[in-house]
Amino acid sequence: MKKAYKKVDFPTEKIRKFLEPGPIVLVSSRWEGKENIMTMGWHTVLEFSPSLVGCMITAENHSFDMIEKSGECVINIPTVDLIDEIIGIGNSSGADTDKFNKFGLTAEKASIIKAPLIKECFANYECKLVDKQLLSKYNFFIFEVVKAHVATSSKYPKTVHYLGEGIFMVSGRHIAFPEKFKPENL
Amino acid sequence: MKKAYKKVDFPTEKIRKFLEPGPIVLVSSRWEGKENIMTMGWHTVLEFSPSLVGCMITAENHSFDMIEKSGECVINIPTVDLIDEIIGIGNSSGADTDKFNKFGLTAEKASIIKAPLIKECFANYECKLVDKQLLSKYNFFIFEVVKAHVATSSKYPKTVHYLGEGIFMVSGRHIAFPEKFKPENL
Repeated sequence: MKKAYKKVDFPTEKIRKFLEPGPIVLVSSRWEGKENIMTMGWHTVLEFSPSLVGCMITAENHSFDMIEKSGECVINIPTVDLIDEIIGIGNSSGADTDKFNKFGLTAEKASIIKAPLIKECFANYECKLVDKQLLSKYNFFIFEVVKAHVATSSKYPKTVHYLGEGIFMVSGRHIAFPEKFKPENL
Repeated sequence: MKKAYKKVDFPTEKIRKFLEPGPIVLVSSRWEGKENIMTMGWHTVLEFSPSLVGCMITAENHSFDMIEKSGECVINIPTVDLIDEIIGIGNSSGADTDKFNKFGLTAEKASIIKAPLIKECFANYECKLVDKQLLSKYNFFIFEVVKAHVATSSKYPKTVHYLGEGIFMVSGRHIAFPEKFKPENL
């Protein structure tokens, strides 16, 4: 039985908290009545407000066209309990697989966009595609996070971070030094 | 006494191994005879070969101009033993501080570029700026890693991953499932 996180709204200007550490994410999309999921590791926060995120998605991915055409996706942050789904989703194609069904994940209605949230993920960031200028040269999408949902069950999710060659790092302990920062740098 | 890693050449098409997990990095630069270091958390791998990395660097940073004008920098990957330096470097400016001196770090000659390596870091990626088209709108630099040096002391460095608000996640255990991947996806 997979976790079903209870979530609350989270300020979009603070979504770096769960994305900047660099976890593998699951990107869900919807186009012409079909839904899909891909596994993604190449992303970066670009701005606090508007809340911008840049993502490199290989053009061969079935999700590439769905995201470009719909202009939307959800960045879902899974935890280590979903490691089999993370790997399985990354090693199958939406062209011939209904991944929500195959991997036993629940598509939940988003608040603002049409692409679905993945209920079993710790956090869900609803994204609109705002800049395509690096798409043709680098497959680089720039999204604005327009709505964020984050689980209340734990302060820090146990995320997985990909190194290549089938190896993942699982997030470890947390250390805090706010007193050593200038307030404007926190 | 800080660690002084012994390093070997590392294939540039494999540098994602230490960057994709999302660690905080130290970016070193050199311009008009001066050297500087900044702390950076907003970066992503963009391509294996040529080895491309995208980085968001706030224009207010002293390093921004140095990197844009010289067209070079080094992405250095520090480990948790350098946490005081990581925070101190991120909370001071190269405009009035010689950071190599203040933080007791050693500037080492790079192989290909003029910007210095930081000897005390686990890995050093020599970078050339190859695309500026997103600089004015997003402060987003696209670099090619032209040479990589990686320590031989341990398989996995103990990196730190920033969450904001003075909090860092320290990299935890590693798990490997190469048998679950298609060979072309490893």
